[in-house]
Amino acid sequence: MSNPHSKEEMMQFLKEAIAEARLGLSEGGIPIGSVLVRDGKIIGRGHNRRVQNNNPTAHAEIECLKNAGRMNDYVDTVLYSTLMPCAMCAGAAVQFKVPVVVAGENRTFKSASDWMESMGTQVIDMDSEECFQMLAEFAKAQPDVWNEDIGIPTKN
Amino acid sequence: MSNPHSKEEMMQFLKEAIAEARLGLSEGGIPIGSVLVRDGKIIGRGHNRRVQNNNPTAHAEIECLKNAGRMNDYVDTVLYSTLMPCAMCAGAAVQFKVPVVVAGENRTFKSASDWMESMGTQVIDMDSEECFQMLAEFAKAQPDVWNEDIGIPTKN
Repeated sequence: MSNPHSKEEMMQFLKEAIAEARLGLSEGGIPIGSVLVRDGKIIGRGHNRRVQNNNPTAHAEIECLKNAGRMNDYVDTVLYSTLMPCAMCAGAAVQFKVPVVVAGENRTFKSASDWMESMGTQVIDMDSEECFQMLAEFAKAQPDVWNEDIGIPTKN
Repeated sequence: MSNPHSKEEMMQFLKEAIAEARLGLSEGGIPIGSVLVRDGKIIGRGHNRRVQNNNPTAHAEIECLKNAGRMNDYVDTVLYSTLMPCAMCAGAAVQFKVPVVVAGENRTFKSASDWMESMGTQVIDMDSEECFQMLAEFAKAQPDVWNEDIGIPTKN
């Protein structure tokens, strides 16, 4: 499946992922949000909860896929995230065969986009200034938490 | 870091992962278990809870890493799983920079071992008959649940 969303739809769904990210920020967490879309409807949403839940695996995309619940397949779904998925979340998209991943930006963290593409996942980078600024501000304010989230040890 | 565990230690920790898998089976779940080890001690453990929690991301390794909680780094850790990690769980090992992954078997599911190795993770396959039989029996008894877990649609 190629990306079924128009530019306007992508902006709309990315806005929902940004709303999730801002919800996470308001909880004291890392501002990264995600939504899963099928047939023009959001069927799952989530945000990073590493800090809130003391859970290093609670990345936005994992929370989103968790909240969407079990399903037989991910055909016709599109996974949105405010940030290019990390290796774990990219792996989830590959494992579940999510055909299209739309990222708000990859300037803060390019991560595993090349690998996803090599595995047949279509990856779209929207290069959103809002997504970039939101996360850049957080990373500047709380570098230890941010580095921990992307797997860079800071306290050695 | 190269694998710090002797063959005897690997057998011991794999046994703990198998205990987790059997716990999952007793709950009506998919029998895959995992433990995270540092300095000869288990610092996290978990089992697949897809069925129990209606959560497709609750693979054994993700549950194990979740239960281990936040930590600054995964240096000197070894992640055990009764089954070779899928792309999502392999991605978690890569993302968190877990240096060594020990799998009970990869006959049921080879998954992402080559990719992990290409990313610098040492991967050891113990080719355990017990792990293989446990999962093979489950996959035969409940093929739909098993196929769902490894991302193969069955109800189209």
